[in-house]
Amino acid sequence: MDYKIIETKERVLADNDAAAERTRAAMKKSGTLLVNLMGSPGAGKTSALLQLIRLLGGRYKIGVMEADVDSDVDAKTVSEAGAKAIQLHTGGLCHMDADMTARGLDALEGENLDVIFLENVGNLVCPAEFEVGADLRMMILSVPEGDDKPLKYPLMFTVSDVMLVNKIDTAPIFDFDLAKASERARSLNGKIEIFPVSARTGEGFEAPAEFLARKIDERRRGE
Amino acid sequence: MDYKIIETKERVLADNDAAAERTRAAMKKSGTLLVNLMGSPGAGKTSALLQLIRLLGGRYKIGVMEADVDSDVDAKTVSEAGAKAIQLHTGGLCHMDADMTARGLDALEGENLDVIFLENVGNLVCPAEFEVGADLRMMILSVPEGDDKPLKYPLMFTVSDVMLVNKIDTAPIFDFDLAKASERARSLNGKIEIFPVSARTGEGFEAPAEFLARKIDERRRGE
Repeated sequence: MDYKIIETKERVLADNDAAAERTRAAMKKSGTLLVNLMGSPGAGKTSALLQLIRLLGGRYKIGVMEADVDSDVDAKTVSEAGAKAIQLHTGGLCHMDADMTARGLDALEGENLDVIFLENVGNLVCPAEFEVGADLRMMILSVPEGDDKPLKYPLMFTVSDVMLVNKIDTAPIFDFDLAKASERARSLNGKIEIFPVSARTGEGFEAPAEFLARKIDERRRGE
Repeated sequence: MDYKIIETKERVLADNDAAAERTRAAMKKSGTLLVNLMGSPGAGKTSALLQLIRLLGGRYKIGVMEADVDSDVDAKTVSEAGAKAIQLHTGGLCHMDADMTARGLDALEGENLDVIFLENVGNLVCPAEFEVGADLRMMILSVPEGDDKPLKYPLMFTVSDVMLVNKIDTAPIFDFDLAKASERARSLNGKIEIFPVSARTGEGFEAPAEFLARKIDERRRGE
């Protein structure tokens, strides 16, 4: 039984990686930066996006693909904030794959966007395993989840370029140790960029917004 | 591509359901209640278990299977609290299946346990799709995740018998509306039992502990 599942999975992953490579090439050609935003349910993915749209929306044309198992609550919210938004339903699947992502990108074609955020399904496990062809992987760890999460879900921290530590204003309530969480993430991934933020108050979002702006500018210059 | 994935998934699910039925029959025969405990990363699954062990440990022999992608932090904690604990590594898989559960149960055989808790991988999506052969499915929604989660991860709320609303002491900080969360869960599943609790303070655990005690007693009487 084990063997069968693993074999299936490897084939699916190989097909997926090929599709992700096609997306990566297409994004580079069109001068658009694709960001894969991941995190647990309730970590604050949509609220963080709203803060980034607030800070980057004046300078760049922003697109958002909201992936959900079922609902379309988030696309509406993000669209009202001024981004070009579409909703993707995974139909029960716990992550986005490269093929679904490519179809979402097709729907945004012709919008001439500088950056597209894919808000992945709320999940710390599966989205880390499936490449979607993004240029940047940004994950959110929220304070109430605990500073031990890098120990328990290591792959997500290993594959991410950026880690937002959200709900940082509640750190004292939850005995959350930012230094410990950062050290645990960095021991898995020495290059991860870590930004403590609060999507509720807006605190701390200038730094990740500037980091993203640099990446968007590089992409526009064809890098 | 979609079709292929779905076909694979259906075969895997059919094999899984057969294994789950074997486990369910074996549990009934041995007079042991099997509880599948699910929730997001950081929802408080291990801490809730510690509270339940505190309240039920004097009356019943308790076993715990800690399923994790990788670490073995939780089995150690639970074992120190007095339960017979084993650690299961899913090897990257985002949920427990019936076969892995059966192997875990084999390792606990001969312990003459009244109740066994399976602490599933932290994930609101996949564990809801995979039966493990449990008699009771208990899920934890934690307040910081938000009261809208039943709208976004409906299957988990649909398949669960019990919903613990954890970190209830932080409801005012997160603008969490317990009535709304309960109403949304009940609109998916009219029979779900809802208990607001705080695993940090112990508040509210008497009610779910008594609910579980009734179920354990029924099982011991051969029901």
